[in-house]
Amino acid sequence: MLLKEGIEPDFEVRIDPDSREPVYRQIAEQLKSKIIEGVILPGQSLPTVRQLADRLSVSNFTVLHAYGLLQQQNLIESTIGRGTVVSKRAFREQGEFLIRQLAHSGPFNAFEDLSEAAGIRSLATACPDPALFHADEFWAELYALGKGSHWQMYYSPPHGEPELISAVQNLLRKDRIIATPSHVVITSGSTHAMTLAVDVVCDPGDTVLVESPSFLGSESFFAHRRVRPIPVPRTAEGFDIDAILALIKKHRPKCFILSPSYSAPTGYQLSYEQREAIAQIANDQQIFVLENESFSRIRYDGDALPPITAFGRGSGRVIHIGSFSYMLTPGLRLGYIASQINISKRIADRLRAQQLSLCRFTQLATASYLKNGSLDTHLQRVLPKYRLRRDAMLQALETSMPAGTQWSWPEGGFSTWVELPAGRDYSKLYQQAVEHGTAFAGGGLFLGCHEKERCMRLTFGMQSTSAIQEAVRILGKLVESSPTT
Amino acid sequence: MLLKEGIEPDFEVRIDPDSREPVYRQIAEQLKSKIIEGVILPGQSLPTVRQLADRLSVSNFTVLHAYGLLQQQNLIESTIGRGTVVSKRAFREQGEFLIRQLAHSGPFNAFEDLSEAAGIRSLATACPDPALFHADEFWAELYALGKGSHWQMYYSPPHGEPELISAVQNLLRKDRIIATPSHVVITSGSTHAMTLAVDVVCDPGDTVLVESPSFLGSESFFAHRRVRPIPVPRTAEGFDIDAILALIKKHRPKCFILSPSYSAPTGYQLSYEQREAIAQIANDQQIFVLENESFSRIRYDGDALPPITAFGRGSGRVIHIGSFSYMLTPGLRLGYIASQINISKRIADRLRAQQLSLCRFTQLATASYLKNGSLDTHLQRVLPKYRLRRDAMLQALETSMPAGTQWSWPEGGFSTWVELPAGRDYSKLYQQAVEHGTAFAGGGLFLGCHEKERCMRLTFGMQSTSAIQEAVRILGKLVESSPTT
Repeated sequence: MLLKEGIEPDFEVRIDPDSREPVYRQIAEQLKSKIIEGVILPGQSLPTVRQLADRLSVSNFTVLHAYGLLQQQNLIESTIGRGTVVSKRAFREQGEFLIRQLAHSGPFNAFEDLSEAAGIRSLATACPDPALFHADEFWAELYALGKGSHWQMYYSPPHGEPELISAVQNLLRKDRIIATPSHVVITSGSTHAMTLAVDVVCDPGDTVLVESPSFLGSESFFAHRRVRPIPVPRTAEGFDIDAILALIKKHRPKCFILSPSYSAPTGYQLSYEQREAIAQIANDQQIFVLENESFSRIRYDGDALPPITAFGRGSGRVIHIGSFSYMLTPGLRLGYIASQINISKRIADRLRAQQLSLCRFTQLATASYLKNGSLDTHLQRVLPKYRLRRDAMLQALETSMPAGTQWSWPEGGFSTWVELPAGRDYSKLYQQAVEHGTAFAGGGLFLGCHEKERCMRLTFGMQSTSAIQEAVRILGKLVESSPTT
Repeated sequence: MLLKEGIEPDFEVRIDPDSREPVYRQIAEQLKSKIIEGVILPGQSLPTVRQLADRLSVSNFTVLHAYGLLQQQNLIESTIGRGTVVSKRAFREQGEFLIRQLAHSGPFNAFEDLSEAAGIRSLATACPDPALFHADEFWAELYALGKGSHWQMYYSPPHGEPELISAVQNLLRKDRIIATPSHVVITSGSTHAMTLAVDVVCDPGDTVLVESPSFLGSESFFAHRRVRPIPVPRTAEGFDIDAILALIKKHRPKCFILSPSYSAPTGYQLSYEQREAIAQIANDQQIFVLENESFSRIRYDGDALPPITAFGRGSGRVIHIGSFSYMLTPGLRLGYIASQINISKRIADRLRAQQLSLCRFTQLATASYLKNGSLDTHLQRVLPKYRLRRDAMLQALETSMPAGTQWSWPEGGFSTWVELPAGRDYSKLYQQAVEHGTAFAGGGLFLGCHEKERCMRLTFGMQSTSAIQEAVRILGKLVESSPTT
């Protein structure tokens, strides 16, 4: 299934001289696709470096670099005397192993397996690329700490380190939220913040409104919190405010959960007017609004809009969540909540009862990193790269997807929401995609998605532009070859 | 109240030449007590270094070092021309600030404030001394990591890093527990492990049995988990097994929670026979047993006993919890759970729904640390020191507490449980103790403690032997001067 026997090897590669992607990577990604698609078979020899360089009119060094990349991914191997051949075991075995694993656990449990290191081009995780984070700058902060007091190896206060809280206050100020230290609690990322906030404002059995499509794993999240989520449809234009009011009247929810800016999966930005209207709803209807603004700084186009919390009329019923996972790197496991003091205190108490405190030295190192202005430097460095990846994704969808496919146009964040044309059976699509070296997050993982098999979230944060192009091209072919119903 | 006016300064210090405590520290601790007790008043001059050295027949260097320690704690200050004087603002202000804070939040929120750095001798936290952890060894592991893959700055699998799980398997093997990687989940310390385990085996409203006196903050812990704890009295001899069976019959609890080895607050070790009996109960009664063995490696006397999990007859209903907070340092925020695969899987799912994953690079650095054998080296280095502190605590209680006081004799861990003689009003004791520079954890913080004001947990992990002696001496005087009822 994976490999088509008896096909002549074809080493033709299209090089786009205008692309910002280095030529060696364009070559590598296209050769990789040929291996994945069985155009070049396991055991078959590749041209020598010199032959391919001549054929493509590039330098030996460029081909050498491309082969190096494929070798790192175990797709090809070099043997003295035999030259370079397509690896016999690598892809098929790896693919089969991953399929077994993914069928069991979903893409969520296999972050690194789904990375480039394993030869897979994953479009499944809405995360920044760890390769673009200059980890050395963070390590330097940690090294500097190492020379300090032994108290760094101790507990942190349950609400977080004062230094990091102060840095978060500065971030919030830029977002037009004035917070004192008592308003802020440091958490272990945005999911942890959501967990704590939902546990504090809801009792088991309560109902909550959730924007739809919602975040990945939302169904499981709410089941664990023992609350009942009611999906609230959100389009590129935002919400139907009257529909929200009707749902509130009908279900009497405790809170409304949404990501105003660049909501994963769609990447939509909520308008100023709708933000204001939701703040008003929080006040009028006396329900809490949980806004997850973790993606707000991953902006490619348009204006930054104030978070709902910044609209005073929310009168203390808006809870604001942010995370360093997206604006920096998920490895830090740090995020924050800003809310009225009474809620903050209960959140910190709950965190303490749950796990005493978070890691102190990572908080201190992150605080120094932020104080040094490294966040702005980092964002200036990476946002242009992510914008190119976003553009490559949208371009590839345009080029490779069959007519009738629809997708969202993300102004920020790391993902787009794709709806495939009706009339075909996509039940095998995910497995086929993994077999062809691409993973995505299927509609079934998103609360309130009615067309589970027709929908998918594709992400572009973690792959190079040419890997995105190749992955979407292969995906497009699989979609087109899905049987009609 | 804090300072007695009009008393002649007295610089007499008893030096014990047989003590393992350095002489400079003996001098500093006794002078500190004189300042706290108002024998030397704010603004009063201390003898010059030379004068005191001559009077005590020690070197100038020793006195200089003692003064340095007091200066670090803001208890004395040196001014050119005026020599060394007792600080005017330091102790009283600091004390009053702390009292206000502690009255509000309890000793649990003020770890570092209650440290020596603030001039307070805290006997309130059952933790190892961060000054005794060779943090440089851990930082070295982290530095080595810094040179590695950028994936270290990414998510970890929800059940934990394979390298750390493998190191935990080795620890468990030494405890006679055979575990595969699927049995183990890495957590953010033992409280986090308890949270996850209780949430997985209990539904809201369920009843659980809990040894009594139980861990600090247990009442709040169970309230947040929405389960109802039933205290099961435990003495130096262990449990009344028939009483446990009767409680199970009456309350139909989902699980029984205990710390077999060196349970904080008492430090008692549960016998081999009782461990076996509890494993049998888990099997016969089909209830879960949650054993927190986080202190089992902090052993001063007696034999290491197998955890309840190691008794096969528990037939998969015993959940084992350990933590690196006590055997290494709380700063890592790492612990573990070993349980049957079905439970482990649910725990990892819950952790993922709650906070996705734990910090990857601290897990990897801890795994290398353990792999290098540094845990054994660390324990060999610190256990003799903690044993001396334990002995100093027991000796000081013997010397300084009024007749009728009772206390547990801990064979391991960092705490002893003290019951003061009846017939006195101790309602002001905590506030007075803080005013006199000592903090403890009152009986009210421990579930199932009926004599809240007469009971307290005193800890000896974080103070030097002479600080322990001085703190208990002062506490003894306050107890003796408590009004009779």
